[in-house]
Amino acid sequence: MTRTRFHQELEELKHRILAMAGMAEQAVDLAVQAYSQRDIAMCQRVLNNEPAINRAEREVDEFAVDLLAMQQPMAIDLRFILAVIKINADLERVGDQAVNIAQRVLHLVEYAPKDLPVDIPAMASKVRKMVRDALQCFIEGDADLAKRVLEADDEVDRMNKEAFANLSACMQDHPDSAAQALDALSIARNLERVADHATNIAEDVIFWIRGADVRHHAGQTASRI
Amino acid sequence: MTRTRFHQELEELKHRILAMAGMAEQAVDLAVQAYSQRDIAMCQRVLNNEPAINRAEREVDEFAVDLLAMQQPMAIDLRFILAVIKINADLERVGDQAVNIAQRVLHLVEYAPKDLPVDIPAMASKVRKMVRDALQCFIEGDADLAKRVLEADDEVDRMNKEAFANLSACMQDHPDSAAQALDALSIARNLERVADHATNIAEDVIFWIRGADVRHHAGQTASRI
Repeated sequence: MTRTRFHQELEELKHRILAMAGMAEQAVDLAVQAYSQRDIAMCQRVLNNEPAINRAEREVDEFAVDLLAMQQPMAIDLRFILAVIKINADLERVGDQAVNIAQRVLHLVEYAPKDLPVDIPAMASKVRKMVRDALQCFIEGDADLAKRVLEADDEVDRMNKEAFANLSACMQDHPDSAAQALDALSIARNLERVADHATNIAEDVIFWIRGADVRHHAGQTASRI
Repeated sequence: MTRTRFHQELEELKHRILAMAGMAEQAVDLAVQAYSQRDIAMCQRVLNNEPAINRAEREVDEFAVDLLAMQQPMAIDLRFILAVIKINADLERVGDQAVNIAQRVLHLVEYAPKDLPVDIPAMASKVRKMVRDALQCFIEGDADLAKRVLEADDEVDRMNKEAFANLSACMQDHPDSAAQALDALSIARNLERVADHATNIAEDVIFWIRGADVRHHAGQTASRI
């Protein structure tokens, strides 16, 4: 394979991982919308779409492995392909989180609507921006934007902790709302895990661009309750 | 680098990932022991050990990337190195889960001991066996054992769902135990996530050995609440 052809294949790989990212993002959007609208049909769509995301993951992986096997890549290309393989795994797990949220919503709608002390759409909007920014910094090779994603993760962690505190107090004070509060708590945690995956993606972009590894950035703790 | 030298380096890589696995396993053991014994000092040891696990992850990654960059590996060696890179990421996240458990235990010991409807040590023992088996199948290249790890994951999912149901009922019936029940529920979920990582490791081993991708095995759902 010529170098030109090889670089066309790298572009194709980038194209495929972005398609995969689109599917994962859409799944989270749909699951959060299902929560806001208490919509069972939307939950079902999230569940139905999961096999396609899993298939896309396998295809991206095999494509990346073939590229590594066919040509000895330069160091920077090697790091790019490795970053794609890692990002791919994170995106698939973002899809899993969307499924988890949809399952919680299916449980939640069996109960009467309650006003709960958590703003899931606000949290979802922050998380969504993190995922979009993580992919943006991947497309543009922008390490500065990647660092801002790492910072945003601390904010989402804070929101999740607050949700945890408020919802557990709510359970104690209103045992009759415990089931709904617990579902909301699970959904907040699932969103926080999506944010973790966005963080992983940003770290992989930095690994690719800088050749330096900035994982475990200062101030980060494993506070993923 | 000669092929012989290259294979010595692969052995060294295997040695390093196993050392990393030992650290991650030990962290989980310590955190679960801290839960059983309500031991703050043990929790602190888990928190203190985290930076060393993060450092080990970076070192394994760089070693693997250097190996890929220095020599065009054969397809099976390429898959082995990629499997190590993925396993490495999962082991670091196992370490994160140990930290999460330790943090929950630190919260839990602030409350009076309660008899809760969950057997954390039994769940931990199943999860521990999964992690050990996943590493065993990696050491021996044993795809059959890897498949048994995938099956064991369904059992841990079941235990986690049961814990969720029992503990949320307990919160409803005994609001004064809600804080402790919620901590136990988090710990059960963290253990279930460790089992997920063991499953990922087993899948990576199968990817390496078979060159076939068996991820998303039949019967697996994204039921990671």
